[in-house]
Amino acid sequence: MDEIQIVDIKKSIFEDNDREAEQLRKELKAQHTFLLNVMSSPGSGKTTTIIKTLQKLKEEFRIGVLEADIDSAVDAERVVEAGGVAIQLHTGGMCHLDSGMTRTALESLGTEQMDLVILENVGNLVCPAEFDTGASSSVMILSVPEGDDKPLKYPLMFSVCDALLINKIDCLPYFNFDVAAVEERVKKLNPNIEIFEISANTGEGFDAWLAWLREKTNAWNGKAD
Amino acid sequence: MDEIQIVDIKKSIFEDNDREAEQLRKELKAQHTFLLNVMSSPGSGKTTTIIKTLQKLKEEFRIGVLEADIDSAVDAERVVEAGGVAIQLHTGGMCHLDSGMTRTALESLGTEQMDLVILENVGNLVCPAEFDTGASSSVMILSVPEGDDKPLKYPLMFSVCDALLINKIDCLPYFNFDVAAVEERVKKLNPNIEIFEISANTGEGFDAWLAWLREKTNAWNGKAD
Repeated sequence: MDEIQIVDIKKSIFEDNDREAEQLRKELKAQHTFLLNVMSSPGSGKTTTIIKTLQKLKEEFRIGVLEADIDSAVDAERVVEAGGVAIQLHTGGMCHLDSGMTRTALESLGTEQMDLVILENVGNLVCPAEFDTGASSSVMILSVPEGDDKPLKYPLMFSVCDALLINKIDCLPYFNFDVAAVEERVKKLNPNIEIFEISANTGEGFDAWLAWLREKTNAWNGKAD
Repeated sequence: MDEIQIVDIKKSIFEDNDREAEQLRKELKAQHTFLLNVMSSPGSGKTTTIIKTLQKLKEEFRIGVLEADIDSAVDAERVVEAGGVAIQLHTGGMCHLDSGMTRTALESLGTEQMDLVILENVGNLVCPAEFDTGASSSVMILSVPEGDDKPLKYPLMFSVCDALLINKIDCLPYFNFDVAAVEERVKKLNPNIEIFEISANTGEGFDAWLAWLREKTNAWNGKAD
């Protein structure tokens, strides 16, 4: 296995995270790099979803992956094994990423020649929702085994995302999960959110999700039809 | 349905959380109330596990439940519907409970006549591990669909708990989850931790878990054989 680069990132010194995030977003726009921030609970399938997305889009885009975790390099190793370019970020116990931490990570990866960078945020439905990373778009994953009440309990996370991926949809028969109820609860919080039902294991539902991501990336990078 | 009491709790004014937690623990010991702090990711089955535990032990102990969430009263409603005494705590966006918040919650519930109080912490594998609530014991739940790599990625949470409940064990056939690998990873972090395989849905494995909790509660309350 290739050696994984591990970058220790620390809490940003910038007090005004929103302003710094806006500045980072402008710079990424200017260099034609779309930054996708992926958030969810631990174990919802972020890494598996990112790897499948990477494998499906790697002929179309130059893609890099940033894997944030408190500890371990498990996720970056999985991405590299799958043929992707990735580095592992260690947050030193921090429960979220802010725009300064994201900037450090992007500089470590070297993203100037990349069309699409996927940032796997820390597995947490609370804190990451409160900090703008500077991403072009934010998406979240809710997996079927987590239950359909999550929009009621973590409303901010569902409010700040541009798309919701309902993952492990192939497990619906084994869990008491009401897809229609989730959609209604989420749309009430965030009427413009796009919702995709997927299985990162089987690939079910990926065509619609990839079409959305392709369109967003091309539009950001000035390559829309 | 009974009306649910909702208590808004704010970040403690106490700078020295550890000292305050120790003080709270002493007071709970003196009043013979065992406080169990339950932590996990969102959707691992905390509330279902707590309700089943309550139903199995309610003839033996006077039990109260504190349900912490960013928003909604879903969990406290479920406990009350199941015949329990519960209040809902709103953390105002806070991603964890500290000992001051726990003290406020205990005072709102009125726990002096209770043998066992179960505190459902905010669903989060990061921040709650860093703050001593003043509990007599802390346990965590890891559910099978979350994956067997979680001890590698959230080591502090696995280190600070006295017991680990591996929940949704009835779903093992549908997921790639290596129980032995989890046990090895967890014991490396925390050699003294007790591990129970349970299903809060089917009741599988509850006898051993309830025996552990019964023994701990009786010992704390001075009723050990």
